[in-house]
Amino acid sequence: MALRFQIEATSGAARAGRLITPHGEVQTPVFMPVGTLGSVKGVPQEILEELGVEILLGNTYHLYLRPGIEQVRRLGGLHRFMSWDRAILTDSGGFQVFSLSELRKLTEEGVTFRSHLDGSTQFLSPEAATEAQIGLGADIIMAFDECTEYPAEPSRVRSSMELTLRWAERSKKYFEEHKHEVPWGRGHVGTAAPTAPTHSDRTQALFGIVQGGMDPVLRKESAERTIEIGFPGYAIGGLSVGEPRKLTREIVEATIQHLPAETPRYLMGVGTPEEIVEYANLGIDMMDCVLPTRAARHGLLFTSEGKISIKQARYAGDRGPLDPNCGCRVCARYSRAYLRHLYASNEILAQVLNTVHNLSFYLDTMRAVRHSIALGDRPQFLSGK
Amino acid sequence: MALRFQIEATSGAARAGRLITPHGEVQTPVFMPVGTLGSVKGVPQEILEELGVEILLGNTYHLYLRPGIEQVRRLGGLHRFMSWDRAILTDSGGFQVFSLSELRKLTEEGVTFRSHLDGSTQFLSPEAATEAQIGLGADIIMAFDECTEYPAEPSRVRSSMELTLRWAERSKKYFEEHKHEVPWGRGHVGTAAPTAPTHSDRTQALFGIVQGGMDPVLRKESAERTIEIGFPGYAIGGLSVGEPRKLTREIVEATIQHLPAETPRYLMGVGTPEEIVEYANLGIDMMDCVLPTRAARHGLLFTSEGKISIKQARYAGDRGPLDPNCGCRVCARYSRAYLRHLYASNEILAQVLNTVHNLSFYLDTMRAVRHSIALGDRPQFLSGK
Repeated sequence: MALRFQIEATSGAARAGRLITPHGEVQTPVFMPVGTLGSVKGVPQEILEELGVEILLGNTYHLYLRPGIEQVRRLGGLHRFMSWDRAILTDSGGFQVFSLSELRKLTEEGVTFRSHLDGSTQFLSPEAATEAQIGLGADIIMAFDECTEYPAEPSRVRSSMELTLRWAERSKKYFEEHKHEVPWGRGHVGTAAPTAPTHSDRTQALFGIVQGGMDPVLRKESAERTIEIGFPGYAIGGLSVGEPRKLTREIVEATIQHLPAETPRYLMGVGTPEEIVEYANLGIDMMDCVLPTRAARHGLLFTSEGKISIKQARYAGDRGPLDPNCGCRVCARYSRAYLRHLYASNEILAQVLNTVHNLSFYLDTMRAVRHSIALGDRPQFLSGK
Repeated sequence: MALRFQIEATSGAARAGRLITPHGEVQTPVFMPVGTLGSVKGVPQEILEELGVEILLGNTYHLYLRPGIEQVRRLGGLHRFMSWDRAILTDSGGFQVFSLSELRKLTEEGVTFRSHLDGSTQFLSPEAATEAQIGLGADIIMAFDECTEYPAEPSRVRSSMELTLRWAERSKKYFEEHKHEVPWGRGHVGTAAPTAPTHSDRTQALFGIVQGGMDPVLRKESAERTIEIGFPGYAIGGLSVGEPRKLTREIVEATIQHLPAETPRYLMGVGTPEEIVEYANLGIDMMDCVLPTRAARHGLLFTSEGKISIKQARYAGDRGPLDPNCGCRVCARYSRAYLRHLYASNEILAQVLNTVHNLSFYLDTMRAVRHSIALGDRPQFLSGK
């Protein structure tokens, strides 16, 4: 079995459980930090472990362009390349192709695009994206989809949804034929000889992605037809693309009711601390977002007392910890005054410490959510903001 | 007593000992990492502790401009501001005034200069620099000197040396009158109430700086007249300013023979791993240099097998550790291929990991030097390069 999912407690629509992957267990609902290029920007893997990160997200598009899939595959896959023995999920690259690359040309076959790095012409299709994700070797990989833009005409939303469904079938077909090519079981990087046990009985899991824009009827159809293809987990894609948050929530609710209860549900690309609690309450099991890490690099910090923009002069003389209710290594040691100075002075350490704190805050938030569900309570976001 | 220095073993001219400061003991010969703005760029203080760093250097010029001395003083001094309970040494700011600032104007009184940050007009003198260093509260502070440029005419070297001597007297006078203003003994940042013991019986130590350009006769005179003023430690300044390394060594030898055996000898601004071993052999006890940290940020890494430029394509597929003979957390976990990828992708983590390794290499080098001296052996730089 590539992946098992056990629900251990429920509270209303919310569920707490365990996702058992070839690289360890993941407590759900889970927030997955984004490690775009095989690194959560500024944070060594041993600190991610200390924070309790059980699953990371890697971006296929970015790794495809640099250092290249073949390079990572030859080095034993993404886990070994970045020395991360816990679970990894990769996206399919579709979202970045549509948001980052230039001069893209979409056909039934796939997408031709220019690299945002060097302008070179590249091509991704359901087969190529799945091949890439098998080469990277994440525990959970995603079907190649088209992320429908917002707003979009109804006919455009339907045709985009239909394309995603055809691509889901092709992704699954390629995956089933090639999933045993996953590069696990070789010698660990840095050891003289291959000593790790082989996981020949284990492989990756491919998740399907539900599209359908902001139309509940199309979302239902997309969910049903994606389930018909059959995946061990389902993602809700095409949200957090510029629509109002109220609409996001409506579409999540309209979609989630059509997803099977026994498989993991992954809401892609969300959200704020308040939102991840809200979506966990709706029955979402997995989420990812660049917000905590990107905001940290811009000096925007999440605390139990609300958001803090550490660049503000009011913190220049503040001896207190960033968040008096946080137990992370940053709050345990450094003052707001010091963090403000590091940020104002453009010190690298500002990015490191800010990112560690924001991730800690997100992970603590999800720990509290899981605890509430285990107690049968409704998870709430407890912020003094 | 502000500072005690105990020599515990000698081997030829080399000595191994302990520098006992108000913030802990420092094993010598010691290499002091540079934490310019209250941060060793990219490395959290807890990792510096793990590396065994016992003393850091802070730059008065940089901290004077940002966040400002008064700010640091109000927050309890540099130790508390940056949450570093071990020893700190600050330079006087003189070197940076001469190397970084614009439109400087030198008079007997001091130096007027424009900030390299905002162009504002600033002034440093022996009194102002000493006041600033008392406000920062480092364990060891430096007299305000003029770092003579290289090359320089003999008459210029003499007049510069004479000015440094007059400034040394003024620095000492100001220090003796104000040393009890050091901001130690207040409540720790982040704690609710002041709980730390006060160190009212302890204060800083002010070191004198020997100048005299590349003239052994002037160096002797500068040493003798600086000793006449009287300091608990002596630095050799004005080297590593562009002169050939052979000349640096000659001037160190010409100077050190005139310095008292029982006080610490600090050679400012050196050097490569080979050089710090060489200078320890000449009887130097303390050194500092931006080389390991700055080189790390440019992908230049020091290893037991020689220097490595990690940006090179030859490392893209190299599964081995950066240095197979290094036990640091970077070499224990990450491959050259991964470090090369991080550097090539301009990831923040490259700067973090590279700096941790280079510092580890320098600190290990000095540990080996101290061990050799303790055994009565001549310290050697053991590189396969």
